[in-house]
Formats: sequence, C-alpha cells, structure tokens
Amino acid sequence: MKATLSGIFAPITTPFDNEEVSLKQFRSNMQKYKKTPLSGIFVLGSNGESKSLTESEKLSLLEVVLAKRGNHQMIMAGTGHESTRQTISFSKKVARMGVDCVSVVTPSYFKKQMTDDALIAMYTEVAEALTVPVIIYNAPGFTGVTVSPKVIKALASHPNIAGMKDSSTGNMSSYLLAAQGCDFNVLAGTVSTLLPSMLLGATGGVVSLANAFPASSCELFDRYMAGDMAGARKLHNTLYALNQSVSGSFGVAGVKYAMELGGFHGGDPRKPLLPLKEKDKESIRAAAKAAGMI
Amino acid sequence: MKATLSGIFAPITTPFDNEEVSLKQFRSNMQKYKKTPLSGIFVLGSNGESKSLTESEKLSLLEVVLAKRGNHQMIMAGTGHESTRQTISFSKKVARMGVDCVSVVTPSYFKKQMTDDALIAMYTEVAEALTVPVIIYNAPGFTGVTVSPKVIKALASHPNIAGMKDSSTGNMSSYLLAAQGCDFNVLAGTVSTLLPSMLLGATGGVVSLANAFPASSCELFDRYMAGDMAGARKLHNTLYALNQSVSGSFGVAGVKYAMELGGFHGGDPRKPLLPLKEKDKESIRAAAKAAGMI
Amino acid sequence: MKATLSGIFAPITTPFDNEEVSLKQFRSNMQKYKKTPLSGIFVLGSNGESKSLTESEKLSLLEVVLAKRGNHQMIMAGTGHESTRQTISFSKKVARMGVDCVSVVTPSYFKKQMTDDALIAMYTEVAEALTVPVIIYNAPGFTGVTVSPKVIKALASHPNIAGMKDSSTGNMSSYLLAAQGCDFNVLAGTVSTLLPSMLLGATGGVVSLANAFPASSCELFDRYMAGDMAGARKLHNTLYALNQSVSGSFGVAGVKYAMELGGFHGGDPRKPLLPLKEKDKESIRAAAKAAGMI
Amino acid sequence: MKATLSGIFAPITTPFDNEEVSLKQFRSNMQKYKKTPLSGIFVLGSNGESKSLTESEKLSLLEVVLAKRGNHQMIMAGTGHESTRQTISFSKKVARMGVDCVSVVTPSYFKKQMTDDALIAMYTEVAEALTVPVIIYNAPGFTGVTVSPKVIKALASHPNIAGMKDSSTGNMSSYLLAAQGCDFNVLAGTVSTLLPSMLLGATGGVVSLANAFPASSCELFDRYMAGDMAGARKLHNTLYALNQSVSGSFGVAGVKYAMELGGFHGGDPRKPLLPLKEKDKESIRAAAKAAGMI
Repeated sequence: MKATLSGIFAPITTPFDNEEVSLKQFRSNMQKYKKTPLSGIFVLGSNGESKSLTESEKLSLLEVVLAKRGNHQMIMAGTGHESTRQTISFSKKVARMGVDCVSVVTPSYFKKQMTDDALIAMYTEVAEALTVPVIIYNAPGFTGVTVSPKVIKALASHPNIAGMKDSSTGNMSSYLLAAQGCDFNVLAGTVSTLLPSMLLGATGGVVSLANAFPASSCELFDRYMAGDMAGARKLHNTLYALNQSVSGSFGVAGVKYAMELGGFHGGDPRKPLLPLKEKDKESIRAAAKAAGMI
Repeated sequence: MKATLSGIFAPITTPFDNEEVSLKQFRSNMQKYKKTPLSGIFVLGSNGESKSLTESEKLSLLEVVLAKRGNHQMIMAGTGHESTRQTISFSKKVARMGVDCVSVVTPSYFKKQMTDDALIAMYTEVAEALTVPVIIYNAPGFTGVTVSPKVIKALASHPNIAGMKDSSTGNMSSYLLAAQGCDFNVLAGTVSTLLPSMLLGATGGVVSLANAFPASSCELFDRYMAGDMAGARKLHNTLYALNQSVSGSFGVAGVKYAMELGGFHGGDPRKPLLPLKEKDKESIRAAAKAAGMI
Repeated sequence: MKATLSGIFAPITTPFDNEEVSLKQFRSNMQKYKKTPLSGIFVLGSNGESKSLTESEKLSLLEVVLAKRGNHQMIMAGTGHESTRQTISFSKKVARMGVDCVSVVTPSYFKKQMTDDALIAMYTEVAEALTVPVIIYNAPGFTGVTVSPKVIKALASHPNIAGMKDSSTGNMSSYLLAAQGCDFNVLAGTVSTLLPSMLLGATGGVVSLANAFPASSCELFDRYMAGDMAGARKLHNTLYALNQSVSGSFGVAGVKYAMELGGFHGGDPRKPLLPLKEKDKESIRAAAKAAGMI
Repeated sequence: MKATLSGIFAPITTPFDNEEVSLKQFRSNMQKYKKTPLSGIFVLGSNGESKSLTESEKLSLLEVVLAKRGNHQMIMAGTGHESTRQTISFSKKVARMGVDCVSVVTPSYFKKQMTDDALIAMYTEVAEALTVPVIIYNAPGFTGVTVSPKVIKALASHPNIAGMKDSSTGNMSSYLLAAQGCDFNVLAGTVSTLLPSMLLGATGGVVSLANAFPASSCELFDRYMAGDMAGARKLHNTLYALNQSVSGSFGVAGVKYAMELGGFHGGDPRKPLLPLKEKDKESIRAAAKAAGMI
C-alpha cells in the first residue's frame, strides 16, 4: 500500500525577521504544532513562500521540521521546480533527510505547453526517480495550470504516486472518479472545500487556516468522521467565512496575521508581497472574533 | 538620458545536449548572431528557458554572450526572480559582468497579490538597488500577471527604469500613452505585433523569430524606418504567418526547430517541455518554405 | 413565508420537429413527468432553448405545462430578458397564467456593466413589479456574468425574492452564508453539484439529467434527506459520471438525446445548435449503460 | 464584387425618454449625421442597445435611418438573434426595407457549443437565405464567443459574405490573412484599434466615438489614407485616450454622454444599464476637454 494521507495538514509558513528567515520563530511554531492533533505538516509549499526561498534556506527549514515534528505527524515537503531535473534532484535531497512524501506542483511558466502528455511524462519521470511517494499538487490559482482528470486517470495507479492535493475551486468528483479503484488519496486544498470534498471521498485537507487555528480545522474533520453532519456544517460555515476573510482576501500575508492571533509567529511575508495595512489586520481580527477564535 | 532600446533583439535560446547545457553549440550560435544586424541579444529570458536553469548555468551562458557579442549589440539579461531580494542579488552579479541592462519579469506565483502597489514597490526597489538600467517585462502569457498602464505611469519617469518589453496581445497605446513625455522605450514582444506597435511608437522588438531568421526580422524594422509601408506590410504578413506556425503553435520547442532550419543549433528543450513530434517539425518546415525562408 | 423550493426540478427541453416547436411531443413528455416524483418543472430555461423561442412559442409551451403538471409539482418559468422592462412585462404575462415563480437570469450582453449595483437595482425593480416570487438565476457558463455574494446579501431579505438557482461551478457556501438568516432557498444548477450543495444547505436542484432520468435524480435527493450518506455518495458518483458525458460534453443536444434513451421526446436542438453526430450518441449510450440507466 | 466597406461607420445609439424610444431625438441625430463625412451608419448594434429593443421599436428606428441618411452613407443593420431562423427572418424584413447590408453577431447564450462548425453552418445558412450581403460581427467582449481565423477562412470566399467587423482586442492579421485573396473587408470595431488595423489591411472602422465626434474619427481615417503617418499617430493618441475614458470606462452610457458633449441627443441607457453618476460625467468632460473636442 502507498502512503495514506488522512486528516488535516498545516501548510506552514516561513517567518521572516526583516526579510531574513527566522529559524528561531519557526522552531517555536513547530514546537506548538507538535502538540496539536494535526496529522501532518506540509513544508516548503505556497504558504511557505517556497518560491521566494533559496535552496539552503529551504534545507534549514526542513531540518527543523524533521527534528521537531510530533510522532503522529507526517511530513510532506514541496519540491516542484520548473525543470524536471531540478524537481528530481531537490526531491532526492529531501528524501534522504527523511520526509514522508513530496508534493510536486505543476510547472507553470510554460503554461501553454503543460499539456496532458507533458504532465504525465513529468510526473512519471519524477515518481520513478524517487523512492519517496509523490503527491500531485494542482494549484491553478498560483500556476495558471489545471491538472485534468485524464492526467489523474493516467497517474493514479502508479505505485509511487500516492495522491493529489487539489486547490482548484471546482467539484472534486472528476478527480476522485478518475482515480477510482486506485490506491490514491485526494486532499482538499483549503478549509473552504474540506467538508463537501470529504463527503465526495477526499481523505483530508491541506488547510492554511490550520496554521493559525489547528484545533478547529481538526475538529471539522473529526465531526465529519463521527457522522455529525449538522455539527460539521455549522463549523464549516464558521471556518468558511473566516477563511474568506483571511487567505481568500489577503493570501499568505493574511494567513500570517491570523497566525499571530492564534498565538504563533506570523510576521510579514517576503517582498514583493506587501505587508498588511492596519485596516486589513482589523478586518481579520473582526472575522476571527466573529468566528469565536479570539 | 537612459539606455536607448532600438531595433531587433533576439531572445536567444539555450541549446541542450541530452539535457545538459551545450556551451559549444551556444558559442557557435553567438558567433553567427554577432555578424547579423541584430541590435541586441536578450539572454536568460523565456525563450532561454531561464526558469529551468541553475544559477551557475546562467552565469556560464552570460559569459559566452558577453565575450562573443558584436560591438554594435546591446546585451540585455533576464534577472527576474519570485523574490525581490533574489532579483536584486542576481541582477547585481550580471551587472558586474557587464550587461547593458536587465529585463525583470513580473513575479508570478502569487498572482492575486501582484497588485499595482506591489509591482510599483518591487520595480522601484529593484531599480534603486542597481546601477544598470531596468526593463519591465510584461509577459501575461507566461506569468498570468498583466502590468497595468497605471504601473507604467508610476514607473516611466524613474531615472533607472529605461523601458518595457510588452508581450501582451493588446494594443500598445495604453502603455505608450502612460509613458508619454518620459524617456522610456517600449519594445514589442513578438514579430506579430512589431509593425503595428512601431506605428504607435514602439522603438523595436524582442522577437523570437529573429533567433532563426535574424535578417528578415531586421528587414521588417528597416522597411518601417525607411517609410516603406507597403513593403513593411507585405513582410509583416509573411513573418506573422510564419511566427504563428512556429512560436505561436509550439513555443520554445518550435523556435528551436526553426533555428535549425535557419542554420543555428536548436535542439530539444529541457523537460518538462516535450520535444516536437515529426509532424510538428514538418508543419514548421512547410511554413518556413511558404515564407521563403528555406 | 416565501415560496419554498425543495427537491428536484426538471429544466424541461423544447422538442422541435424540423425546426418547428412540437407541442404534441411536448405534451407527451409532460404527461410522463406528471407521474414522476419531480417536485417541480422549470420551463423556458436554458435547456428549454428559451433564447431561441419567440414569445408566442413560449406562451404555448407554458400553457401545456400549466395544464399537464402534476398536482405536487411547482411550475417555475424563465422570464429574464436583456432589458428590465421586457423582463417585467413578460413575467407579468406568465404570472397571470398561473406559474408559481419566475426565474430571472442575469442580463448578459452588457457584461462589463452588470456590476453589483446594476444587478441589485434590476432584481429589486423586477421583484417589486411582480406579485409572483422571483428566483435569481446565476448561470456564468451561459451569461459570462457571475452574481456576487454581495448581491445575494443585498437581495436575500427582499419579501418577493424567494431564492437562487446557482449554476456556477464553485462552492455554494458563499451564497448560502450571504443569505444566512433570510427566508431564501438556494438550488443547485446541476446534478454534479447537488449532493455537496445539499450538505452545505441547498434545498434541492434544477437538474438537466432529470429530464431524461427523473427517478434517479430524485433518488439522490431522497437518499441524502434520509441520511444515507454512503448510498448518496454512490449514486452521486454514478450520476456525476453520466452527467459529464451528457450535458457536460454536449449541452442541450446531449440532454435531448439522453431523454430519448429515457423514453422521452428529445430530438435535435434548434439551429445554430448542431445535432449530435452518431459517435456522440454512441458515447452517451455507453455512459447511460455504464450508469445502469438503460 | 461584393459590397465595399470603407471609411468610418457610426454605430448609432437609441435615445430614450423616460425608458421610451424617442424617435424625435433620433431623427434629430440622423439629421446631423447626414451632413458629416461618415461613410456609413450602423443601426441596431451593441451601442444601439438592440438587445433591449422590441422588434417594432427596431423597425421604427430603421425607417428613420433609411429616410434620413446622407446619399453618400451606407446603412448596415444589426440583425443577429440567438436562433438562426430568427436571424434570417428579421434580416429579410430589414433587407426589404432597403438596408445595404446586415451585421450578424455570433449567437452567445450557448457559448460552448459555438464551435467553428456551428458558426460556419450558421453564417452559411444566413448568407444563402438573404439577398443582402452579410457582415460577420466578432464581439467577444459582449458575447464571450471569439470567431476563429479558421471560420473566417471558411467563409471569406462566400459570395454573400462581404466582410467582418472585429471588436476583439488582438492583432487583426490573423483574420486578414485568413481572408487573403478573397473579396472580404475587415473593419476595426473601435477607434482604439483603427490606425494599427488599417496599416495591416483593414478598410475602415465602426467606431462608437464617431457617434459623438464624427469629424475627428473621419479625420484619422483620412490622415492615414493620405499617408500622413505622423499626423495619424498624433490623432490616434488623442482619440485613443479619449475613447478609453468614454466607451472603455462606461460603455454605452459613456458614449451617450459624450454625444451630448458633441451636440447630439444622448440621454440615459435603458435599464438594467445604469445612468452615469455626476463624477463619471465630469471625467468624460475632462477627457473631452483634454482631447480638444470641447
């Protein structure tokens, strides 16, 4: 059996102190996540501002994550680069360090050339070069590339492709049905789609809101698993509204500010991302209050 | 006065031999470009597959370009990274090596956050950190980010921002009017828009077709400058149709094959870009024949 | 209390015989729908090719519907025109004939001017001019206009706006939360989103697949209402896959062919819609077989 | 030879008095257009709010146009409906009244089904049913449908399809090349693209700014025809900037207000289009002043 992806993963952020990575703040955050029910940590992803980090920064962050994680927590590292060879070479490095799986975002610069054939060839080559399981990361909002169900159908049975993280906005059934019968896990990419996706067959989610409020995100998962549909819907409504006001309105900068409200080190994103304005922070505070988080 | 950008620039490609950069083939190409009327070389851009190169590969390529360029040829290097600090640090390196200007593509991963304010802040910070002039590169087809006329209006008078390369598909007047009265050059991003853009005020173009057929691209520029409108339109029609069959249909892989037809080293792109199929090559050959290029 | 919209509505099609409306076939279809558990009939909508009908054709169709409906079936008529006054005047006509509510699609020709303010003003004026309840129809796939949650927030408490039919592809929570606390029903616009939408709070759906296979669509609703989540998911998967092969691939022409497989009069759509090719029909037949419908 | 379309056409608007068509104001406008150098009048188009008019309103407007036009002015009427049969039947009516040609916009409601094959079949059927020449109207901003060069290639040689009005934003060469060798005229759809389009081979334009300032729009055409490139570019810049502030910012409502500044009857558009706010009018006045129009 391939790796099982289940429950809530936090796509953790990278704290900066005056544009420099602060490993100290990062360590402090990890120490707290360790004690949460989060089933996994996704490091070096979009919310980690991975594309704005140098390779040596990435490796330092990963070391901390591997040292500090809870025993119950799976570590997934983002390793996608624009070239297939860089993706493979970086994935091998992090695999040797001990991550449980790698999440590979689609290349995005040559969008028009990212045809089904190109994506199938790329993911197959990556999966075959690695010993650690590969997770396909579909993130059209960042990449402008949408993985088609046909690609998933072609890849879902690959012994080293364990699943998919879907951050597209649509109905997840097209992917779930394409992978039907395969040992292939699909994760929702946001708390906003977590509940309906689980009803359709997703096994969990990578949820930026969990960076700030891990317990509530895990509770949504638990309510669904316990069959408490009314309770799940109620919590979904709360978290959906909150998430729209945080990540949906302000992206990484919003997530980082929400983390401060939740007791973590957030701070400003690295440039060119702009820091939040005071009124944006206020609107996040108001939303967190309305949601009963603070 | 800021740098003057005029005439035709070739956005040169990177030859690969079995996925490794071939400096030998690259040198041979440069030796030929040197003898052409091309007024500039754009290295480390989209057609150079810059996003798929390591930094040390980039620097090796740049060394060759600086050593082999014609005396009449300006060297523009692509230096845009996702983070502002990486853009600045890499730009400083290439500036010390002797490039004439740097072309900075918009960051693209955090598309929704690339607001006017974020882009103005980013380009301003980059321009102020550098001694070499900055060219704004607007490439929505690759980045999913469109530089607005408002951004150009805010930046065109900056003493170290010399111009813009516009690879969007629209009418260029919105940018030209935003920069009116400033010492700011706008270049077309493809041969398909070169002629109408020059009529509106562009001073030249960065033209992937010039990688394969530099003389014809330069001739189109010359006809327009000589006031030969009928001749310019005729050649425009020929090159427009050819360009649609090359870059318009197959991107970098198409440009590279056309280069082989034009007597240069093309070869396959680096993965995940797929090599052309035989029938695709045939269609490019047919188009080159129809255009009288071979 | 406003009109309650609950259960499955069939957005019935208009049969044509050699481009002429066939009331005979239409009557025969209605006779069959009457005996189904469908809770409503939506006539003169997108699947009814309403935009391709003359007003007198529309009125004849409506007469049949009103005469032949089952007693348990609500009649909703599509009445949206490009101008507010035509929408009002046609809505008044159909209201006098006895429909239970009118569905008003957003105007679409002047897309860029269909701002929140314009839509709020339009729906308010329509709702106030009518005695019959108004349903907002959000159909970006047809109109290129997306109703924003802000519009719904402004309109949901209007005493004569009873709900919304949402045919957009996204998560329905943004609309449901905007209308929270109001007597306002949200219907899914396709069987593909019916199940997850109901989990989030939708009260039913307008489902083109129900034109062909009304019993199965109603069964999906019933399983959900009975709390049979596993059974609902299983049937959702079947109907989702079928719907992708019918409406998702071929639009109205596909729905009409599926109707023939389901024992109804389908026939060709009116031009400019093209009739299906034989191989397209085959693929629908295959999908219907795989789904156990035939 | 087919109809020749050359010079500047005004896509005239429909004046409303308290939501009712004002034939009196319309007549007064026509009396003025008659004395301008406009080579044609386009009635019942997008700017005429044709989609918001009843058929009898349309016919009354057309009567006025035919009675009042200048002898040198060609009359083109918009006749596109969603169904092919309605397009044909309405086109026949206006042809009998004496229009010189009909402009047929692509159907738009069933966007996804408006394939190349569907459009080719539709335009061919319409052209063959009529004695008056057909102009293809490509208006993706309104319709969400883009006519492909392949469609133009298939239709350009049809003896009763005389040309195309292109309101897309791109480079017009793809259409001009598709029609190369055919007796087929391409008109620009806005003053913003008129000059570059003419350089590429367009024979004129349908220009909403000409509703307000017919002389200047005609002068741009004349300067180009006279070979005065510098003068043409200068006037293009003026009109481009003005047009962005009028139609580009406010659509029909903006055009109508600009008409009042130009001495014509403008007035408010029909609902759901909103009337301009006072500050919007001010910004148009400022732009018209800056352009030297008032």
